[in-house]
Amino acid sequence: MTEQAKANLENLYRIFTVPEAPDSTLGRIDQALTADLAGFLQQHIVATGCSLEEIERDFSSTQIPEEPTFVSDYTEFVKNKLVAQSVHTASPGFVGHMTSAMPYFMLPLSRILIALNQNTVKVETSKAFTPLERQVLAMLHRLVFAQDDAFYQRYIHDSRCALGAFCSGGTIANTTALWLARNRLCKPDGMFRGIAQEGLLRALQHLRCEGLVVLASRRAHYSLAKGVDLLGLGRDNLIPVETDENNRIDLRCLRQHCQRLQDENKRVLALVGIAGTTETGTVDPLDALADLAAELECHFHVDAAWGGPTLFSQTHRGLLKGIERADSVTIDAHKQLYAPMGAGMVLFRDPRAVSAIEHHAAYILRPGSKDLGTHTLEGSRPGKALLVHAGLSIIGRKGYELLIDQGIERARHFADCIRAHPDFELVTAPELNILTYRYNPAWSQQAMAQASQEQRRVANVLLDQLTVTIQKAQREAGNTFVSRTRLEPAQYQGDSITVFRVVLANPLTTDALLEAVLAEQCGWARRFAELLAPLQALQAGWRQA
Amino acid sequence: MTEQAKANLENLYRIFTVPEAPDSTLGRIDQALTADLAGFLQQHIVATGCSLEEIERDFSSTQIPEEPTFVSDYTEFVKNKLVAQSVHTASPGFVGHMTSAMPYFMLPLSRILIALNQNTVKVETSKAFTPLERQVLAMLHRLVFAQDDAFYQRYIHDSRCALGAFCSGGTIANTTALWLARNRLCKPDGMFRGIAQEGLLRALQHLRCEGLVVLASRRAHYSLAKGVDLLGLGRDNLIPVETDENNRIDLRCLRQHCQRLQDENKRVLALVGIAGTTETGTVDPLDALADLAAELECHFHVDAAWGGPTLFSQTHRGLLKGIERADSVTIDAHKQLYAPMGAGMVLFRDPRAVSAIEHHAAYILRPGSKDLGTHTLEGSRPGKALLVHAGLSIIGRKGYELLIDQGIERARHFADCIRAHPDFELVTAPELNILTYRYNPAWSQQAMAQASQEQRRVANVLLDQLTVTIQKAQREAGNTFVSRTRLEPAQYQGDSITVFRVVLANPLTTDALLEAVLAEQCGWARRFAELLAPLQALQAGWRQA
Repeated sequence: MTEQAKANLENLYRIFTVPEAPDSTLGRIDQALTADLAGFLQQHIVATGCSLEEIERDFSSTQIPEEPTFVSDYTEFVKNKLVAQSVHTASPGFVGHMTSAMPYFMLPLSRILIALNQNTVKVETSKAFTPLERQVLAMLHRLVFAQDDAFYQRYIHDSRCALGAFCSGGTIANTTALWLARNRLCKPDGMFRGIAQEGLLRALQHLRCEGLVVLASRRAHYSLAKGVDLLGLGRDNLIPVETDENNRIDLRCLRQHCQRLQDENKRVLALVGIAGTTETGTVDPLDALADLAAELECHFHVDAAWGGPTLFSQTHRGLLKGIERADSVTIDAHKQLYAPMGAGMVLFRDPRAVSAIEHHAAYILRPGSKDLGTHTLEGSRPGKALLVHAGLSIIGRKGYELLIDQGIERARHFADCIRAHPDFELVTAPELNILTYRYNPAWSQQAMAQASQEQRRVANVLLDQLTVTIQKAQREAGNTFVSRTRLEPAQYQGDSITVFRVVLANPLTTDALLEAVLAEQCGWARRFAELLAPLQALQAGWRQA
Repeated sequence: MTEQAKANLENLYRIFTVPEAPDSTLGRIDQALTADLAGFLQQHIVATGCSLEEIERDFSSTQIPEEPTFVSDYTEFVKNKLVAQSVHTASPGFVGHMTSAMPYFMLPLSRILIALNQNTVKVETSKAFTPLERQVLAMLHRLVFAQDDAFYQRYIHDSRCALGAFCSGGTIANTTALWLARNRLCKPDGMFRGIAQEGLLRALQHLRCEGLVVLASRRAHYSLAKGVDLLGLGRDNLIPVETDENNRIDLRCLRQHCQRLQDENKRVLALVGIAGTTETGTVDPLDALADLAAELECHFHVDAAWGGPTLFSQTHRGLLKGIERADSVTIDAHKQLYAPMGAGMVLFRDPRAVSAIEHHAAYILRPGSKDLGTHTLEGSRPGKALLVHAGLSIIGRKGYELLIDQGIERARHFADCIRAHPDFELVTAPELNILTYRYNPAWSQQAMAQASQEQRRVANVLLDQLTVTIQKAQREAGNTFVSRTRLEPAQYQGDSITVFRVVLANPLTTDALLEAVLAEQCGWARRFAELLAPLQALQAGWRQA
């Protein structure tokens, strides 16, 4: 071996053995972030100096460097080009998406998790993390399904059964639920060896039907569309059911769809109820959906990715009544369980249902093994259940109750502010802690109340333009952030309108901050007054007509 | 609000605002792990005191605690019950699975990642992490497909295209590849609106065929079986193609299968080549597979989850010749790119192919947006691409080359040791850095060489029992660890046998340590001599006969 080759090898070993210097720049960035999670971008939610296109220039080299780089040089890059240009998702003023400040203990625990680098796919690479994950699933199963001690003692560590499956997030959770539902409906039966083995074509031939259909409200998360695409059902077979004036699934329409599907010789695979829609935070009538699912003998899935933790609240858990009758329930830990990004779960009421999606392999996941990988959609996975376990243990049921209750109260208070303000319209009132609204000056609201449908439509197009402009300006200014979406609310006679969307899950968000959000938006509306001029002209025309 | 309620709220805020004390117990565990990644379990790979059943008892309560717990109490639990009972996957003696020591900079960078808590599903919650992820995909695309500067300049940040998709691991990557292949084959065509919209039944009717088939060697990873199940194709339609004497896919058999499938009116959806099989580290003849895929006009996917980084090595990259002709390639960053658990990628040769799996939503992922969530199977995701970016930048092409070359050399040296030892049989020689072998005492090897097929089968059953017993004993003793699997190697006349499996990716593993592994196994064989007694009696019988 040459001297150079030896030196290279030594350097390489150092990368794998030298501990990080406690005062390294990388360590200092980390400490600064840890010590002041809420302050790393000072007052700003995003840095305001650079457009995305400018940032892209710093990430445009596509050659993998030939030679190694000093960690210190790389660290400067991370500090100046990445951290400084990231988004302060933990900021109390960032109320547009499902992000929040994080309980401080999540950080050192996450670091321990990464240092241990367990792989929960198999016991051989995870040991105690395996029973830990099963325990977390049992705890949440109990929160949702409230079975007795004997039930949990029986199933918690029985490897032939599973109370749920851990995964990277709600999309995989929802997809796992539909996969399980599909494979259970199309299970082995006589000569038919099941859909997992023979595929969908044979399954439909066996069931003598033209298609399998999933029904969910039009407010359902887009992951369901992805799921039915992936599973081979086709998006045509995800029926977006109309919603009532409260954005809940319309049960009469749902029944009509089911009738029609029967006439088309299609089979209802699953009804999906939503406990906290992404856009409006609405909870579907889960008990009534459970009744209908029982009647149709189909799978009943509840997407509680957002709203599941409402069950912690004695005051509000009644909203989710019926969830305990679901066959499967999705809960995201990186949402209202306050874990870092990348932790989802699907719970199965029947612990034996999981056999429909079991897979084995010769080198691991042998039948009868306790390997978690036998029944998760993903393979290799980190032990994120630790962070959920920590949250449940340290914050406790009552702590989560406080968080939930507070978010809902704050949303109601903010809704009252919007209602009281002459120039805003509350579009969807908060059932949980999500609401939508828009800026529509008092004079325009008045004019629109008298307008024809056609006149309203034109006005809405102009208002939409204003909403988008304000949302973008506010985002770019980087002081506070709300998101936007499009809805067709019942009280707008089915017109599709663009609205601001606010999610109130960060306990550090204050009422004063929300008032500042409205004030800032009024300021932007004045700044973009030229967008309102055509609306004024238009409405003047209505009065003359 | 009562005084008690106020106090509760204050405590709650503290959880979200108080920085972690620098000398907290949690911090100390973290520091100890960071400072001595290789030593947290002292000499052991796993703690030897407790069985899994005993550990389960510590994780058996299913009630979510009503009241909060002190972080310090919880920390004791983590230390004593979880960390102490986890697996030392970074240990140089843990050579049974695809784990390794980690470059030290991965830890502080991971911590920064968690503190920032970005969500790469949309630019609004990830900003600079979006171009960063696209850059990483471009770098690896270039490593595999070696297009020119103009190509990468054109596509790197074009949101209508994608050079690949990031995900949590190889299973999602392989599934994404097959999903994309399926949706491209069954694309909108005339009246047919595509499989994503209409589903598999209509797609098969449109293509006028009885099924879509994926062909891969019998050594393919179990995630492909999961993928075809999920996609509705059915496991019957994943054809496990026979392997040749080098564990590579047998091209003659492959062609025969294709012919048969045509006669059955089934359509070949994809050929899958493996660059580094999980069990034997074999590389399929990728160039020949690319030829056949071109002939069949089907998708060509390469599962390079393990072996992809071999492309860094000037010496060994030739083994993967033909990978640049693949339509899609899976690479796991938590394997030979040395990132922590939970980072996979699938690369697409054609940047426009991704339109087949695009999904949009009203509140994010609007058409034309730069949101990465439009074309990933998962939704919300952390910004793990940072860790790949860091590895590529800091270690560099030459650093990775050293790691790859060294692992292959070490595997070859270990293979020589096994060959030279009278009581071991090398079952599969290492093409990359994975090999398999078994303990079979010299006297038994001699007797089996003369034995009939039936006699060999019985002997193999007894040897399998010994292999399993030794592997388990070695695992429980916790000094070193190899895994085991079942193979049907050509030189064993198709007999299925159980073997030890060794993966050599940890740069801290030494030749001396590997010799100690063999010595320990010889020791266990002596200890379990009673298992060899029936074999001796049996073989004595052969001689008499």
